[in-house]
Amino acid sequence: EIADMLAQSSIESLLAGRHIVITAGPTREEIDPVRFISNHSSGKMGYALASASVALGAKVTLISGPVNLPCPAGVDLVNVVSAEQMHRAVMKAVGATQSDTAGDIMQPNCDIFIGCAAVADYKPQQKTEQKIKKSDTELTLTFTRNPDILSDVAHLAQPPFTVGFAAETQDVAHYAQDKLKRKKLDMIAANDVSQAGLGFNSEQNALNVYWNNGGKNLGVADKSQLAISLMTLVAQRHAVK
Amino acid sequence: EIADMLAQSSIESLLAGRHIVITAGPTREEIDPVRFISNHSSGKMGYALASASVALGAKVTLISGPVNLPCPAGVDLVNVVSAEQMHRAVMKAVGATQSDTAGDIMQPNCDIFIGCAAVADYKPQQKTEQKIKKSDTELTLTFTRNPDILSDVAHLAQPPFTVGFAAETQDVAHYAQDKLKRKKLDMIAANDVSQAGLGFNSEQNALNVYWNNGGKNLGVADKSQLAISLMTLVAQRHAVK
Repeated sequence: EIADMLAQSSIESLLAGRHIVITAGPTREEIDPVRFISNHSSGKMGYALASASVALGAKVTLISGPVNLPCPAGVDLVNVVSAEQMHRAVMKAVGATQSDTAGDIMQPNCDIFIGCAAVADYKPQQKTEQKIKKSDTELTLTFTRNPDILSDVAHLAQPPFTVGFAAETQDVAHYAQDKLKRKKLDMIAANDVSQAGLGFNSEQNALNVYWNNGGKNLGVADKSQLAISLMTLVAQRHAVK
Repeated sequence: EIADMLAQSSIESLLAGRHIVITAGPTREEIDPVRFISNHSSGKMGYALASASVALGAKVTLISGPVNLPCPAGVDLVNVVSAEQMHRAVMKAVGATQSDTAGDIMQPNCDIFIGCAAVADYKPQQKTEQKIKKSDTELTLTFTRNPDILSDVAHLAQPPFTVGFAAETQDVAHYAQDKLKRKKLDMIAANDVSQAGLGFNSEQNALNVYWNNGGKNLGVADKSQLAISLMTLVAQRHAVK
C-alpha cells in the first residue's frame, strides 16, 4: 500500500512545474462559406495526452481544432479552426514572438511541445466569399501549403522538447524516422491509421516511438493508457536531453 | 382544456399512416484515407424534422450523414457517409428499384420525401488508396458531380411529395424558386446561412417556404419549433396535392 502511494506520488510529480503545449484534432480549411476540407482526426489522442500530462503534474495548454470532446479538467483550452489559426495560437503559447521565428530574441514559455493535431497540409488557394454554385460537370480546386507548425516550433532559437506524430498508411517506420530528422524533432510517435480499430476516431491506438538512435514500441492500448505511457516516456527523454 | 386536447389529438394525427423519408447532415467525400471534403451541416434541422414527423404520427426513415446527434425516438435511422451511399439508401427507402429511375415499374413506399441533408455536389474524381504525401507547394484536385438525390426522387414515375432545402449565401429567394422548378419539387424551404446564429450548426433557423404559386415565411424560431411548423405545412400541402 505504501509502495503504491509512493509510486503514485512519483507519477504525479514526473512533469511537475513543466508547461506543456499540445495540439489536437483536425484543422478545417474553408473552401467557401459552406464547404471545407478536413480529416478524420477525432482529437481523442491529443485530449488523452492533455489529461495524462495534468495527471503527471504539468501545466497544460491544449490547442484544439473542431472536435466533439469535453475540455479535460485542469487544462487551458484554446479553440481554433484552420491551420493558420493553430499556427498563431501555438507560437503564442510556446512564447515565441515574431522575431523568434527569424532566429532572434526568445522568451521560452514552454518546456514540451506535442504536435498531435492532424494539421491540414494544404489550404484552398483562395476562400470564396460566396457559396460556389455547382454548374460544370467538373470542378478543379488549387491548394497551397499551410505553415508547418511542428517544424517551426522545432526550429525556434530555443525550442521546447518537441514531439511529433506520424499518421501513415504505409511504410510507417520509414516515414516517421525521416520526419523526426527532417523537422528536427526530439521524438516522434507513429501509428498506422490503415489498421482497423486503431488510430483516427477509435478508442484504441498502437504507437511506435522513435528518437535519435532509439525507440520504444508502446503496443496496443486504450488511448488514455497509451497517453500515460507516452507522457512518462516524454518526461524521461526530456530529463536526459 | 378540451380544446387543447382536441388540438393535440388533431396534431398527432396530421401525418398518421404516412411514411416519410428524411435526409439529414452533411456527406463526406473521401480524398484519401485521411482527408475528406465536407460541409458545415450539423444535421440538427433534419433530426428535428424527423422528431416532428413522429410527433405528427408518421412512420419515419431518417438517412443521415456523419453527425453527432442521438437518434430521435421512434425513428428508423440509416447511417451513410458519402453522397453515393445516401443516394442508394434513399432510393431503397422510397421504394424505387433500378427500373424506376428509367421510368418503368415502381412500388411507391414513401408518401413524403424531405431532402434536408447538405449533400456534397462534387466528389474527388478518384479516391487515392494511400495518403497523398505533401510535396509540391501546390496541389490540384479535380472533382466530378455527385448524383442529385432530390432531383432523382422528384423525377421518379410516381414520386412522393418532395421537399427540398436551399442553403444559400445570396439571392436566397431567387435560387430557391429556381431550384423548386428545375428539380420538379413540390416545396422548398430556404434559409440564408450567411446570417449569424441561423442555419448551419446553430439552434435557431428562419425558413422561407415556397411552392408553385405560393409560399409562407416561417420566421425565426428554434429548429424544433420550426420543424413542427414546417411539417404541419407539408401535411397541409400534401393533402391538397
